[in-house]
Amino acid sequence: MMFADRLFDKINDMNNPTVLGLDPRIEYVPESIRKKHTSCAMSVNEFNRKLLYTLHDIIPAVKFQSAYYEMLGSGGAEVLRESISFARSLGMVVIVDAKRNDIGSTAGAYAEAYLSPGGYDADALTVNAYLGSDGIRPFIDMCKKHDKGIFILVKTSNPSSGELQDLRLETGERIYERMADMVSDWGSHLAGEYGYSSVGAVVGATYPSELTALRERMPGSPFLIPGFGAQGGGADDVAGGFDKRGNGAVINSSRGLMCAWKNEKYRGKYIKEDFCEAARHEAVEMKKALNKVIGR
Amino acid sequence: MMFADRLFDKINDMNNPTVLGLDPRIEYVPESIRKKHTSCAMSVNEFNRKLLYTLHDIIPAVKFQSAYYEMLGSGGAEVLRESISFARSLGMVVIVDAKRNDIGSTAGAYAEAYLSPGGYDADALTVNAYLGSDGIRPFIDMCKKHDKGIFILVKTSNPSSGELQDLRLETGERIYERMADMVSDWGSHLAGEYGYSSVGAVVGATYPSELTALRERMPGSPFLIPGFGAQGGGADDVAGGFDKRGNGAVINSSRGLMCAWKNEKYRGKYIKEDFCEAARHEAVEMKKALNKVIGR
Repeated sequence: MMFADRLFDKINDMNNPTVLGLDPRIEYVPESIRKKHTSCAMSVNEFNRKLLYTLHDIIPAVKFQSAYYEMLGSGGAEVLRESISFARSLGMVVIVDAKRNDIGSTAGAYAEAYLSPGGYDADALTVNAYLGSDGIRPFIDMCKKHDKGIFILVKTSNPSSGELQDLRLETGERIYERMADMVSDWGSHLAGEYGYSSVGAVVGATYPSELTALRERMPGSPFLIPGFGAQGGGADDVAGGFDKRGNGAVINSSRGLMCAWKNEKYRGKYIKEDFCEAARHEAVEMKKALNKVIGR
Repeated sequence: MMFADRLFDKINDMNNPTVLGLDPRIEYVPESIRKKHTSCAMSVNEFNRKLLYTLHDIIPAVKFQSAYYEMLGSGGAEVLRESISFARSLGMVVIVDAKRNDIGSTAGAYAEAYLSPGGYDADALTVNAYLGSDGIRPFIDMCKKHDKGIFILVKTSNPSSGELQDLRLETGERIYERMADMVSDWGSHLAGEYGYSSVGAVVGATYPSELTALRERMPGSPFLIPGFGAQGGGADDVAGGFDKRGNGAVINSSRGLMCAWKNEKYRGKYIKEDFCEAARHEAVEMKKALNKVIGR
């Protein structure tokens, strides 16, 4: 089954368009776990497993932020592999957020590393297309071969994303709009049952009007939307990323879920450092808030 | 000592602006090595060590293409760490070509992973700036803290690099020219003894006229120039990347050196599969060709 169909089937089954972001800085891991292990990698591994197990029956997908695993060297590579494999065994859709980019055979090597069954075997990977189609084709070939997906950076959630992305071209459109059109073209022959292709876009929750305009501009591209929660985007801000049937977007929350246990409002409510209960409570709140704005 | 000074001191000491590119696909490793080891990672490790040892007295720097190590999972991460450490022990300047990009604390995690003494501890990292200055500042902070460098993608060597990079803005300049100006600005307070900053640019050998124009446009930015050899760029094509004193650029060759042993002209010339002799011969040829066009 094509990636976008797997993703939206799963989201519809669970009635929740949330992605659990696992960007585990060691300070996000409760002391109760850290004191059991001799390495950061092992602590992160237990933290990930517990969060995945706790949330897999309400959250359909998980996004691993590669940087935090790379920081842990070869141990981090092992944790990433194990966490991906565990998430897949729980039936979750797995996205690796690595924003990879290179050309030709090197792009092919990244595609193989993250998307092939012999590699990390994620369902989808984030990609940066500054290098043009030579840098995207090897990823698309892998998507076709193994029913995988990519999300290409279009309009990112950070404050300075406009420095380059918002510049206006001589044709009148902005750079991110041209990127949006390139993403639409790359995915144009890969549409699944929901009308969405295997080539998606990363569009930040922090730019709601651009998000709404892009949903209209690229109706066949699934959106991965970061910036919800800690970065300032709320449920109203991401509403424009969905289509009329409530499909078309997945909303990432990382710190909001991983660090729920640090939130004042849960202090004393659950037993000491029960990060799983706190994360589950936050996940339910987020699901409700999202479904309210989508209207399902 | 600042990164650019270390780099150009080393290049001037050895009178050679070449970077050895280690992008080791397993098929680049001779059978004589592969049959000794039970894993690709161990084969690549021996291949790297032998090439580094053979070439370290004529080539000043090495560039590791991260994708090929990531393909090998946690074993690849170990090989990367060992190869970097070995290259540093031989006095070589180490660049990791990973084209990383993300925002805020995640960019900081990448900077820590690759440039901090507790991480891979490379001298420099390639970076993609599509996300704007939020994505660059954490890398620059690390450069300042530990005398490291970054090379930001400006005009890449691949055939389709112009699809985005050559688009003309409403102000008349092209996207890669605007990126060049951003790179100059980011490096403007970080100039070393040679007049070059810790914030460099990646500019492909395959676009010689753009390269020459960029050398003039960004006189304080060191250039990392891929595309020499296998991708079609020759010594004449890269000449424009150097300043009048022959500084300002490092020229990467990957397959040309790694795969010299497969070259017809060395067949039968050295003992069977002596990839080190063949690589050394190619390195000497490349050095001569470059110094001829630089005029040293």
